[in-house]
Amino acid sequence: MAGFKRYRKESEVSYSLGITLTFELLKYKTEYVTRIFIHSGMKEGDTLERLKELSQAAGIEIVYTDKIFHVLSQKENCYVIGEFRKFSCNLSEKESHIVLVNPSNAGNMGTIMRSALGFGITQMAVIRPAVDAFEPKTVRASMGAVFSMDFAYYDRFEEYRKVFGERELYPFMLDAQMSLHKIRPKGIFSLIFGNEATGLPAEFANIGTSVVIPHSERIDSLNLPIAASIAMYEATKK
Amino acid sequence: MAGFKRYRKESEVSYSLGITLTFELLKYKTEYVTRIFIHSGMKEGDTLERLKELSQAAGIEIVYTDKIFHVLSQKENCYVIGEFRKFSCNLSEKESHIVLVNPSNAGNMGTIMRSALGFGITQMAVIRPAVDAFEPKTVRASMGAVFSMDFAYYDRFEEYRKVFGERELYPFMLDAQMSLHKIRPKGIFSLIFGNEATGLPAEFANIGTSVVIPHSERIDSLNLPIAASIAMYEATKK
Repeated sequence: MAGFKRYRKESEVSYSLGITLTFELLKYKTEYVTRIFIHSGMKEGDTLERLKELSQAAGIEIVYTDKIFHVLSQKENCYVIGEFRKFSCNLSEKESHIVLVNPSNAGNMGTIMRSALGFGITQMAVIRPAVDAFEPKTVRASMGAVFSMDFAYYDRFEEYRKVFGERELYPFMLDAQMSLHKIRPKGIFSLIFGNEATGLPAEFANIGTSVVIPHSERIDSLNLPIAASIAMYEATKK
Repeated sequence: MAGFKRYRKESEVSYSLGITLTFELLKYKTEYVTRIFIHSGMKEGDTLERLKELSQAAGIEIVYTDKIFHVLSQKENCYVIGEFRKFSCNLSEKESHIVLVNPSNAGNMGTIMRSALGFGITQMAVIRPAVDAFEPKTVRASMGAVFSMDFAYYDRFEEYRKVFGERELYPFMLDAQMSLHKIRPKGIFSLIFGNEATGLPAEFANIGTSVVIPHSERIDSLNLPIAASIAMYEATKK
């Protein structure tokens, strides 16, 4: 067994840290799981038995070791790690999307995935440069939503637009045409959000209908996962 | 000058870490600022000059030292710290409130303050046990909103209810009577949220009108600052 290395963007595998996440991984992406690691501190009991049964039924190797936990986890109460091959996904023209342009925070991306899944938006497009959807921090913040979402990366927004430009496009910007209060999508749509610090570049004002979430002047902006979640909540309301 | 200690709940003062936060502190809570600390890495220039001018005009001592930065800040790019006396606030019967019952995460509390200020809800009630609104992490996550909010702590929800029970009370619960989509407050209201992991205790179902933010079964719940922000967005819509 090779030594364990820190996760890197180039790695072929990533990790679910913790028992709950690892159950989500086994449930939704069984065929991509390569190994399950169990720490010596993991208590005997029903949870462990269920984990073993699921792994054995799927032919997944169980490795008893503490080493990988020192490398990957800062949390004291992490006793199970799932290792999985990264999967690739395709987006569909028939589904609404959330589009993140240059997101820079892994936790934010994971939190947005969790909200998206909650509001029935299961597809995400990401425009580079961007954080890594498979980074263990993203996986953890998503609470496992990453295993149920389809996401695809693009080098430029124009690439995305070439394929999905026919739908209703809503770039979210502070100086926008429309208030979110008035947005009622009639068909398939994409909600587009910029970077945490800089927002969307000005040229997005010419794409589709730009939207603002009205808020008082006492704050500069809402935090990104909150803005994206409010937008998804409103746009998916029946 | 005494040695610097880590922030503790019992401390009489707390800190704004970073230049932007410290400007917010000076703007909204000038009379509570006790000292401004400047790190040797802080660049000369307009920003520093403005900081000095504001401090001098308000009679606030400026201390040049790196020591407190080692104690309080993990961030490399923090070159200014503001020290302030904790202030106490009273809530008003004429204002709508956000009520957090047993919140356990400082970052979440700060993020909720930022959203609240954005949606014009400037008063927060907190039911103990609860994180500390003055913890530097809360202050930072609030992006300075903490300096513009009024907040008050209560040992039990009943104490809060005795004073503010006449208004529209909306406890947010997964098994609630009403969908948020249908909530249109007619007057002053309070939006009530439980702990991150456990939510509100079952007895809150008997208080006011319990509300749920509809979401798919694919997630257990929305993250707390997101749920609270969506609720405030919807409840304050005109």
